[in-house]
Amino acid sequence: MQLKKLTVNGERLKNTIETFADFGRTDKNGVTRLSLSEEDIKVRDYFRSCCEELGMTVKMDDMGTMYSTLAGVQAKPPIVIGSHMDTVKKGGRFDGVLGVIAGLEIVRTLKDQGITPQIPVTVMNFTNEEGARFEPSMMASGVLAGKFDKAVMLSKKDPEGVTFQEALEASGYAGDAANRIKEAAAYLELHIEQGPVLERENLSIGLVDCVVGMACYEIEVTGESDHAGTTPMGMRKDALFAATDLITELRSKLGELDSELVYTMGRMNVLPNIHTVIPNKVIFTVEARHKDMDVVREVEAIIQGLPALQGDCEVMSTKLWGRDTVWFDPKICEAVEKATESLGYSNKKMASGAGHDAQFVAGFLPSAMVFVPSVKGKSHCEEELTSYEDCEKGVNILLETVLSFLST
Amino acid sequence: MQLKKLTVNGERLKNTIETFADFGRTDKNGVTRLSLSEEDIKVRDYFRSCCEELGMTVKMDDMGTMYSTLAGVQAKPPIVIGSHMDTVKKGGRFDGVLGVIAGLEIVRTLKDQGITPQIPVTVMNFTNEEGARFEPSMMASGVLAGKFDKAVMLSKKDPEGVTFQEALEASGYAGDAANRIKEAAAYLELHIEQGPVLERENLSIGLVDCVVGMACYEIEVTGESDHAGTTPMGMRKDALFAATDLITELRSKLGELDSELVYTMGRMNVLPNIHTVIPNKVIFTVEARHKDMDVVREVEAIIQGLPALQGDCEVMSTKLWGRDTVWFDPKICEAVEKATESLGYSNKKMASGAGHDAQFVAGFLPSAMVFVPSVKGKSHCEEELTSYEDCEKGVNILLETVLSFLST
Repeated sequence: MQLKKLTVNGERLKNTIETFADFGRTDKNGVTRLSLSEEDIKVRDYFRSCCEELGMTVKMDDMGTMYSTLAGVQAKPPIVIGSHMDTVKKGGRFDGVLGVIAGLEIVRTLKDQGITPQIPVTVMNFTNEEGARFEPSMMASGVLAGKFDKAVMLSKKDPEGVTFQEALEASGYAGDAANRIKEAAAYLELHIEQGPVLERENLSIGLVDCVVGMACYEIEVTGESDHAGTTPMGMRKDALFAATDLITELRSKLGELDSELVYTMGRMNVLPNIHTVIPNKVIFTVEARHKDMDVVREVEAIIQGLPALQGDCEVMSTKLWGRDTVWFDPKICEAVEKATESLGYSNKKMASGAGHDAQFVAGFLPSAMVFVPSVKGKSHCEEELTSYEDCEKGVNILLETVLSFLST
Repeated sequence: MQLKKLTVNGERLKNTIETFADFGRTDKNGVTRLSLSEEDIKVRDYFRSCCEELGMTVKMDDMGTMYSTLAGVQAKPPIVIGSHMDTVKKGGRFDGVLGVIAGLEIVRTLKDQGITPQIPVTVMNFTNEEGARFEPSMMASGVLAGKFDKAVMLSKKDPEGVTFQEALEASGYAGDAANRIKEAAAYLELHIEQGPVLERENLSIGLVDCVVGMACYEIEVTGESDHAGTTPMGMRKDALFAATDLITELRSKLGELDSELVYTMGRMNVLPNIHTVIPNKVIFTVEARHKDMDVVREVEAIIQGLPALQGDCEVMSTKLWGRDTVWFDPKICEAVEKATESLGYSNKKMASGAGHDAQFVAGFLPSAMVFVPSVKGKSHCEEELTSYEDCEKGVNILLETVLSFLST
């Protein structure tokens, strides 16, 4: 017979989610809480007060990332639960903040039980994960991992011309580089799936073993813009027709690769974009993601193999960026899986198609992620929804994983 | 043996073209002369002074259209040569103004020869043909022909919020509705082809027998905007993929219709237009033109027959507008053809794919148009070019046609 597992307080978790959502809640029950905005500063103040109430010590690093630490019996590297509290404009109540609240609820549960952890427990809130106010996304974790240049990031401007550095200093959350985390027993991030797979398969938990690699290209097709009424079809260099043919060809070839490959032409601009003028330029993006980098390289070969001329129009492709698949730490993944199984939650192993702070953290701390279902796969919108029940299950898995670290 | 024909003064014509181009000439030898702008008012002043110097009477109607008339021996309805002097932004030196200068050069030639015409000769300058400052195009000829409502047109605003009425009154070119032309022996308009056909076929003259009919539709494709990284291909409603498939199908079906049909998807907007988000909406225009309205109706049937669903995306088509083919007056066309043949210029009969004031005038005055070649088919741009030689040939045809009316 199985012992009853320690679990978090579901009612309190629900209330915490809704309380945090009050900071920037929109008319349609979403959240707008851009990084280092007034709403973000207020939610940071509130989060800090919650942590301090629990006896945690709150520090900030030089990118404004927050570390709230419950001291352990031993002054060893902590076990870390983290994510971010910023949102996109008109985003949801769950993306990011759930992973921070998870840490808070876990510490509250430990306190409820009178448990003093063997090693410290740190709850992290990364600055500017979304990149919605200051590009790029995952800015602070990128600097922490040495992937982004700090000086360049500090100089990034929001649409109003305010630099990240100015916003950070004004927020009161600029801290010390000495506070950057360097070691940890584990880094755990709970996040909503942002995709439809778990819901479609009626599962509660995604055990994330990697963040998929990707490549993003821009294809520029150049024709000639002539009068739509006076230029016979045979004398045209229609960039839109050429682009359409290229997209059809790309879809056909990419469709023959692995079935888990995803590819999207998300941005497309037609010039001059006048109904009576034949388009002389079409610029569109192709981005593709797969956990197997060999598949990503096949995609790149297909894009690089596009003809230089398509129907008399010039074709030029430029790689905008790419990233390799980031595999999470097998031991941490195993611990999370064991915790999930011990709680009896339905689950599957999956890759993360979206980027997360964890992918940068994984470069220097043993890390893993847990997904909970997104209703209809929606995120970054006001309709974003994950059931409180699923949220609770996700936090329980992290609690169980933390406990497994505390008992070893 | 053929008698030497009376022809215009080519050198003077060239100088006139360049003098008129000084009003709004751009750095790259194009012209920006938006309707009723400072440049347009100055070129009108100059045109008026040229006409008055020749003893012509200059009047304006209530839309600012100018009528410069050389009195005839008999006070009968005039023979009219007309076009417009306004241009698009960064347009060329020929579009429109050539047809007005033609009239001026013809009257100058008559005066040179001491000819007092049997019937009046009127040179017209239509206000706001381009519609580049105040939409729609062919505004004044549309009002004159009863196709547009005058009050509505007067209220049209430019991008700065100035109404057409305000601009017209400020210009000093507001005239009297009583001056609107009601009768004429013929209306002749010389214009650049704005297409590549004459140059490609090495011909000097296009004898225009009609302005082609057209239909313009907007197709709206609605899918769902999900995360490009987390949504498996089979769970997507990608509006761009659906739109691409629709365009491919449309091109295939329209390509099977008459070879003279032209069709263009000139405007296309993709939403939300972010490389990491699956497009949830694509809106594009389809416009098609042909002189045979049965062909245009076949196009409409194809568009209206598009499926309501394409790859799980909703498809909605809306007709934005259409116009029937306008056939020019057979007798006037014959007179122009005879004049062309008598001058020995290479020519072909052709349809106008672009709209012109003549298409509205043809509704109440016997009309015809003559085209001269556009180098590389370019117009509405600074590179717009027609050789002075071809311009001269075009004006000579109009002169010869005018003389044929004066002698009958």
